[in-house]
Amino acid sequence: MKALTFDGPGRRIWHEIPDPELRDPEDAIVRVDAVTICGTDLHILAGDVPEVKPGRVLGHEAVGTVEQVGAGVSGFAAGDRVLISCITGCGRCRYCRENHDGQCLSGGGWVLGHLVDGTQAERVRVPFAQRALHLLPESVPDEQALLLADILPTAYEVGVLQGRVAPGSSVAIVGAGPIGLAAVLTARLFSPSRIVVVDPAAGRRAAAERLGAQAVADAADALELVGDLSGGIGVDTAIEAVGVPEAFELCTDLVRPGGHVANVGVHGRPAQLHLERLWIRDVTITTGLVDTFSTPTLLRLVAEGQLDTSELVTHRFGLDEIQDAYDVFERPQESGVLKVALFNR
Amino acid sequence: MKALTFDGPGRRIWHEIPDPELRDPEDAIVRVDAVTICGTDLHILAGDVPEVKPGRVLGHEAVGTVEQVGAGVSGFAAGDRVLISCITGCGRCRYCRENHDGQCLSGGGWVLGHLVDGTQAERVRVPFAQRALHLLPESVPDEQALLLADILPTAYEVGVLQGRVAPGSSVAIVGAGPIGLAAVLTARLFSPSRIVVVDPAAGRRAAAERLGAQAVADAADALELVGDLSGGIGVDTAIEAVGVPEAFELCTDLVRPGGHVANVGVHGRPAQLHLERLWIRDVTITTGLVDTFSTPTLLRLVAEGQLDTSELVTHRFGLDEIQDAYDVFERPQESGVLKVALFNR
Amino acid sequence: MKALTFDGPGRRIWHEIPDPELRDPEDAIVRVDAVTICGTDLHILAGDVPEVKPGRVLGHEAVGTVEQVGAGVSGFAAGDRVLISCITGCGRCRYCRENHDGQCLSGGGWVLGHLVDGTQAERVRVPFAQRALHLLPESVPDEQALLLADILPTAYEVGVLQGRVAPGSSVAIVGAGPIGLAAVLTARLFSPSRIVVVDPAAGRRAAAERLGAQAVADAADALELVGDLSGGIGVDTAIEAVGVPEAFELCTDLVRPGGHVANVGVHGRPAQLHLERLWIRDVTITTGLVDTFSTPTLLRLVAEGQLDTSELVTHRFGLDEIQDAYDVFERPQESGVLKVALFNR
Amino acid sequence: MKALTFDGPGRRIWHEIPDPELRDPEDAIVRVDAVTICGTDLHILAGDVPEVKPGRVLGHEAVGTVEQVGAGVSGFAAGDRVLISCITGCGRCRYCRENHDGQCLSGGGWVLGHLVDGTQAERVRVPFAQRALHLLPESVPDEQALLLADILPTAYEVGVLQGRVAPGSSVAIVGAGPIGLAAVLTARLFSPSRIVVVDPAAGRRAAAERLGAQAVADAADALELVGDLSGGIGVDTAIEAVGVPEAFELCTDLVRPGGHVANVGVHGRPAQLHLERLWIRDVTITTGLVDTFSTPTLLRLVAEGQLDTSELVTHRFGLDEIQDAYDVFERPQESGVLKVALFNR
Repeated sequence: MKALTFDGPGRRIWHEIPDPELRDPEDAIVRVDAVTICGTDLHILAGDVPEVKPGRVLGHEAVGTVEQVGAGVSGFAAGDRVLISCITGCGRCRYCRENHDGQCLSGGGWVLGHLVDGTQAERVRVPFAQRALHLLPESVPDEQALLLADILPTAYEVGVLQGRVAPGSSVAIVGAGPIGLAAVLTARLFSPSRIVVVDPAAGRRAAAERLGAQAVADAADALELVGDLSGGIGVDTAIEAVGVPEAFELCTDLVRPGGHVANVGVHGRPAQLHLERLWIRDVTITTGLVDTFSTPTLLRLVAEGQLDTSELVTHRFGLDEIQDAYDVFERPQESGVLKVALFNR
Repeated sequence: MKALTFDGPGRRIWHEIPDPELRDPEDAIVRVDAVTICGTDLHILAGDVPEVKPGRVLGHEAVGTVEQVGAGVSGFAAGDRVLISCITGCGRCRYCRENHDGQCLSGGGWVLGHLVDGTQAERVRVPFAQRALHLLPESVPDEQALLLADILPTAYEVGVLQGRVAPGSSVAIVGAGPIGLAAVLTARLFSPSRIVVVDPAAGRRAAAERLGAQAVADAADALELVGDLSGGIGVDTAIEAVGVPEAFELCTDLVRPGGHVANVGVHGRPAQLHLERLWIRDVTITTGLVDTFSTPTLLRLVAEGQLDTSELVTHRFGLDEIQDAYDVFERPQESGVLKVALFNR
Repeated sequence: MKALTFDGPGRRIWHEIPDPELRDPEDAIVRVDAVTICGTDLHILAGDVPEVKPGRVLGHEAVGTVEQVGAGVSGFAAGDRVLISCITGCGRCRYCRENHDGQCLSGGGWVLGHLVDGTQAERVRVPFAQRALHLLPESVPDEQALLLADILPTAYEVGVLQGRVAPGSSVAIVGAGPIGLAAVLTARLFSPSRIVVVDPAAGRRAAAERLGAQAVADAADALELVGDLSGGIGVDTAIEAVGVPEAFELCTDLVRPGGHVANVGVHGRPAQLHLERLWIRDVTITTGLVDTFSTPTLLRLVAEGQLDTSELVTHRFGLDEIQDAYDVFERPQESGVLKVALFNR
Repeated sequence: MKALTFDGPGRRIWHEIPDPELRDPEDAIVRVDAVTICGTDLHILAGDVPEVKPGRVLGHEAVGTVEQVGAGVSGFAAGDRVLISCITGCGRCRYCRENHDGQCLSGGGWVLGHLVDGTQAERVRVPFAQRALHLLPESVPDEQALLLADILPTAYEVGVLQGRVAPGSSVAIVGAGPIGLAAVLTARLFSPSRIVVVDPAAGRRAAAERLGAQAVADAADALELVGDLSGGIGVDTAIEAVGVPEAFELCTDLVRPGGHVANVGVHGRPAQLHLERLWIRDVTITTGLVDTFSTPTLLRLVAEGQLDTSELVTHRFGLDEIQDAYDVFERPQESGVLKVALFNR
């Protein structure tokens, strides 16, 4: 089959490799129908994720059709149309029993395109398929489903739920890339009275407004804007959706006493935590990898038309055009790209 | 009356000043029967708290007898024996309505010995007396009650409750000064299966064991000890009770994925937050000033003999010996002091 | 001034009585600008609420203009346009400190039109005015504000919040009177995936659909409809908004294992609790009087156009037409009335 | 092997039946080392549980030694000493994924001695063994472990946790049989300030006091006692541990406004729910079957000596004396029995 593999820092290859096979009774083999690229894939390509070795097929988000399931997989059969979630879980460890598959102690968590071959290929072996796959209702098209593999549950669980967004609350979202915009969409499920989005790119700020943000700013103006909107007290929830120390530190400046900072971004460097100011302010800071416990809920909301993710995919390709798709995805400022969708026609 | 006032960095004076008077209908005047000294008083004396101006009477913890109450105070009368809590609240702002008096927006919060004259005197004016005072049952002696003015509710609310200590959980407490030891005592209310206390001083580690810690270590050995005790995964709750970056950073190393770091210490410098490791670990970090909503609960537990704080007071003085008491309290390594109690006989 | 008083079972009088006066430092005198009638007023008139004695001015919901405030009231002044909430609180008892004013132990709770003279008059004395009054922004017209005095916070706090409505969840609301419809509106703040409303009146079912219910039924068909929609398992949340045993018992039949039944209705008779079926089903049942802690939040959502209550007022009158308004309100099946608004022009 | 089977209402037989065999890859076969009898077994024998057919081996609590495991069971092997929990779960349905195995939709929940042969035998087949078995540390003797199969997690999860027992709170427990006494023990893990136990039998009231209750009463005096102890307001938590309507109704009378009634008892008849009084009182009522998510926690607390269950077993027998053990267990008033332990020597 054809697959996109990591070939060492800065190099990716689209080439023929052997088809995957069942190795474990809890595996499934899934034909990939649609797939997308994540910012994390760019980090891997940059060489920032040393666990990923050359030869690894990238990708942890896809929609596909089940071809084979192992003896230990129930509820799925060949021909089923499924979402392949970025996270799986053994289902037995203390974390999985509490629905925290992201922290699975026995071979689950984020494995696809990381510790095992991923989804940017014509086929993929999915470990612990029981927990990684979700049956897709016909009413949800591949393109919308794709966003449920990672960015929607990530923004929702790690940003919105951990950040305790609530009806009438105020929310600042720092970063209006795909994750930040998914946070805007999923924060609105709780009817906050005000969502402020901070991003340096005017195009992304405009996208945030289209998706429901009431106010936007770049980082330099964010403090003043939030101060004005909140009577000087700060927001109830600040969501970090960039992954750099400055964005995190801005969040801790924007939040009100008693508020929540929810970090969603993937960080490569430490941040300063200004405990000399924060110790007295009753602030709660959370971090987290998505567990995907919310995927069935989000899927239901998409299926019933209550959550519309269609604005997030800006560019479409054939699967064999994946190198072009990467080129576009790597240059968001030029291309205006948010998420790309690749279809295995 | 006699009072201990701040006289600029490094200088404290015990001298005659005018008696306090009612200024506001919500004030009370209380005769001080017993008072203690807090580590924060030492920070003020060091010049670290610029809001405190020379001439200010120090102290925010006391037990006393009501002498006068303003027209707006109900439920208290001259002659009542009361606890004077370190925190008060207007009772009307959004924070007070949610029992977060520590963040009061209208003149409450920590004011005694900070923004108004405090309790290290023969008398004190208590603003918003309704929320700062608590009637004391006869069964609670002054010395035990004193600890309920600040350190017990602080350790309990900001450390134990924010840290989500639970039956069977594991707890690391970094720092075995008065606050850290109060965290040991109040963590035990939730029957954790294991409390590990980290402190460089052997005497304080021994005190922690007497109060119920199952294991103790100095900072150098803490990681290894916690690793051994937790199967390498870390503790459910890590409580910072020192107030230096190193102690906070140790807490973020000791906590398990999905666990809580509760900062109780008063910090003067920023810490490093290792988001490059923590972003993926589902960690919750909280900070906070005590609100004292738990004081009635803790008082009830002391009154009924279920919470025994008697080990925490190590040195006793007359109120007019307060300069000596400060000398002792400033040298814990020599004196072995935890808390001092001063009595206005 | 003119006022509507209870004159014994079945009798109401609109007549001249003396103007109210300040009695307590925490009182305010408010000119009534707009007022409404509650189903509870009908219960009082029927003689079902023995605490209400003849001569009592009825009414516990209004919008008005402050005329006078006592010395103990801060933040309000003559001329302020305010919402008069159905609940007030002393602000000092254990319940008020936890924002549970509905259970106030010292003279708060539901007092207007119940234990003291109410709002169906030209003027009203509001006890503990600090907690009963809310400043109204100009953008909220009297008619929309009126609904925030009781039915919106009641439906939201006692129904939606206690019932743990959540994004993607399923909700059954039994009863489509004003409270039931307010539950539809406020449940939608949490983006449930499905709201089913049960009512015998076709007109009210149609109103429920206009306000956002996805499915409606009468009681006879409710079990089957919910079964079909939920794969036979039941709804996550069932809200009782009628106040008769049959409606409550239906809720306990509609709810899924692990779900919530939130009783909002005012009951006069006991219900059967089928513990022989329910003991094993992990059901949570809640009851409650509104506390109005959510009023500022709901007010903000109305002010910003995110909560539109305009559909709930169906009939408008002058204040001096109040007897006609009662006649209409007592015959909902004929008149199709939901809420009436009376204006003191 | 020898086993105790249900032979129709009123009849139990101890006789030879075929050994159990693995039927499903997720099964285990366990040799029974110790077993106990539950009040539910008496209900089954009385004919009250129609799902249980003649020929069924009774019993759902045991300690044993693994003999065989199916291919789908990991983490357990022949020779392992294990607790057999009364509840198991498929691990895949929506309930199991949230740790609510008691509500498992796919063949888990309470099955042993109910829908499949149980533990009152020399051997037992345990379905979904992965979730039903718990490895036992050497420090926990069989007799203490036995109590973790059902009554401790039931009292703790369904009574103490659902009832929101908290430090300093007040608790009434109605019923001092094994479950009620287990509620006393496990409530104490949260350091309530007062536990009141209500039971008609003086011997059981005395046992409650030995285990830590501060006050005891029979039902007739309970209201007055609780009134006196709580200043007339009621308890924070009332736990029903009998299973008759009168006990449940007493709980709803004992609880304070804003408090919790946690039903643990197994009921055969409906109760009256006095909504005409309760609608206004902010009461939360919960029911539930145990999920056993807390078993690892309770096991750790027993292992470390922080939870001492030794008082609950009053009578000991050989497994082949099981008919005598039933005779004793059926006559608690004569025998003073709480729990029996039967050992397969």
